[in-house]
Amino acid sequence: MTITVAVDCMGGDHGPAVTVPAALEFQRERADVGLILVGPGGAIAPLLRAETPGPRLRLREATQVVGMDEPPAQALRMKKDSSMRVAVNLVKAGEAQACVSAGNTGALMAISRFVLKTLPGIDRPAIATVLPNMRGGYTTMLDLGANVDCTPEQLMQFGVMGAMLVAALEHDERPRVGLLNIGVEDIKGNDTVKRAAELLKDSGLNYIGNVEGDDIYKGTADVVVCDGFVGNAVLKASEGVAQMVGATLKEEFARSALRRVAALVSLPVLRAVKDRMDHRRYNGASLLGLRGVVIKSHGSADEYAFAQALRRAVEEVRNEVVERITRRMAALPQAPSLPRFAAT
Amino acid sequence: MTITVAVDCMGGDHGPAVTVPAALEFQRERADVGLILVGPGGAIAPLLRAETPGPRLRLREATQVVGMDEPPAQALRMKKDSSMRVAVNLVKAGEAQACVSAGNTGALMAISRFVLKTLPGIDRPAIATVLPNMRGGYTTMLDLGANVDCTPEQLMQFGVMGAMLVAALEHDERPRVGLLNIGVEDIKGNDTVKRAAELLKDSGLNYIGNVEGDDIYKGTADVVVCDGFVGNAVLKASEGVAQMVGATLKEEFARSALRRVAALVSLPVLRAVKDRMDHRRYNGASLLGLRGVVIKSHGSADEYAFAQALRRAVEEVRNEVVERITRRMAALPQAPSLPRFAAT
Repeated sequence: MTITVAVDCMGGDHGPAVTVPAALEFQRERADVGLILVGPGGAIAPLLRAETPGPRLRLREATQVVGMDEPPAQALRMKKDSSMRVAVNLVKAGEAQACVSAGNTGALMAISRFVLKTLPGIDRPAIATVLPNMRGGYTTMLDLGANVDCTPEQLMQFGVMGAMLVAALEHDERPRVGLLNIGVEDIKGNDTVKRAAELLKDSGLNYIGNVEGDDIYKGTADVVVCDGFVGNAVLKASEGVAQMVGATLKEEFARSALRRVAALVSLPVLRAVKDRMDHRRYNGASLLGLRGVVIKSHGSADEYAFAQALRRAVEEVRNEVVERITRRMAALPQAPSLPRFAAT
Repeated sequence: MTITVAVDCMGGDHGPAVTVPAALEFQRERADVGLILVGPGGAIAPLLRAETPGPRLRLREATQVVGMDEPPAQALRMKKDSSMRVAVNLVKAGEAQACVSAGNTGALMAISRFVLKTLPGIDRPAIATVLPNMRGGYTTMLDLGANVDCTPEQLMQFGVMGAMLVAALEHDERPRVGLLNIGVEDIKGNDTVKRAAELLKDSGLNYIGNVEGDDIYKGTADVVVCDGFVGNAVLKASEGVAQMVGATLKEEFARSALRRVAALVSLPVLRAVKDRMDHRRYNGASLLGLRGVVIKSHGSADEYAFAQALRRAVEEVRNEVVERITRRMAALPQAPSLPRFAAT
């Protein structure tokens, strides 16, 4: 079956200059993928070069662009013909099975939620990404900033969504789900995480209990659940540490002629390390909990990174992430309403 | 003036085997420091070697030890003759001006708060530490786990405490205070941080607004304020990233004979980088907001790291951190009670 992906060509720091070539290159490698490039024709057509639009490569006009710093509510109300909105609309209409955007995250979330709606039982969508870990694999973490305050129920739903994402993409039917906390003991944390732990224990997921910040990188769990405030702070701090280590290495290797020789000799090693840590390799955060696949590429993505986000979109459709979340939510034990009220 | 530090000799992973030699070595270098070594005499005396107790080196018997995993409430109630409790008591009694422990953080916080009490206007003490940043300096961050739920008022108080710590130790009277958030715009974050931002704006501190996780390592602010849940997760995730980068470097350098030669050539560089990132260098977290100086050493501290915590204790006393916090809190504009109720 051909999977069709709607591409918001206008998002990101570089816009169509990156998204269009990346999409074309990606499609050349994948005979099973159809693309709908969305944006002002005048901005996209000149970048098509030898490619001619056909059934597998369509263009869809959109006259507006959502600004990277535009308030989500404004984008939702005022930009009904934006490339982002039209791309999401294509998923809603069934013309595409997924959409990819490197644009404004808040706007993409607001538009996706408004147009596509959340899946049954899901209160709020969440943003999930993968981070490399010391086991040589990846840890999936969510939420990364869509929800600054979460109820215990939402955290449990994030666990279901993250587990189904990993089950689908990694073909691991019982991924380990951990709850980010400030200690591994049950008594740690605030009331919200304590109650979320109880819900996760009863969820039927392979819940392994509390994990701490360093467990994300140790690979203790396959899925780490937290609220969007914590997830965002952790993700950005992690990027900060990695940048600082890189900058320190550079500085120290440049400190003398002898050290610059050492740097030259070590270049293959430093490149390999950089490559393994390279966030471009796992570009493409999933907006989970929606009635459709929506992938957010990093705004600074280059062609290589944007193609990874497209790949991720196709994989999520092919492996039925949305269907898996739907089925798992329906299979959850029904929580009696009394203890829920008492605890929250 | 001689500054006297009470040392909980029984705390940490290694207990007196590390704390006693570290204390003796530190004192040899500092003629102006008196020490009171607290713990069971039988555990400490054999480690004194050539040193004989005198006015500058006293021993204080304590028959109990707080376990590293002991619940704080239990340590508080049942361990009234523990080395930790006796060391804190010495500060309360004025026999020592500071106390240092590598023991159970929760117990140290509970005991310190119970025995010493908080300063006027401080609702809850917080744990602060310094982290290296890309400007070649340090960023002070608090809280790191003492308070999992914080009110806006508490976050504002953390700002005052952190700023006074930096003012005292770095002799910078207007340290930049940032509030950790998921974006720099005022509209970002939950209600608690939005209200905390307002309070910080009115505090008279050099408040620079919201900062994000990577700003900790960029050195955008001198003090980064957050609740203890977020701070703990960020700190541990940061340690995790640093460990992963270190492990990846090691792995890649070991991959072939040629690469092992490159490692040998690069050894001075790798050592320099490791040294700059070394958390032992800035060991010693401050329990701020108490009527006395209490320093928490990392549990895994070796002699070098534990001596750093002792140094920090002496510096905080000498530079009057407690007095500065007290004065600054007294100088805060009195918040009218109505908006506080309305907003919280």
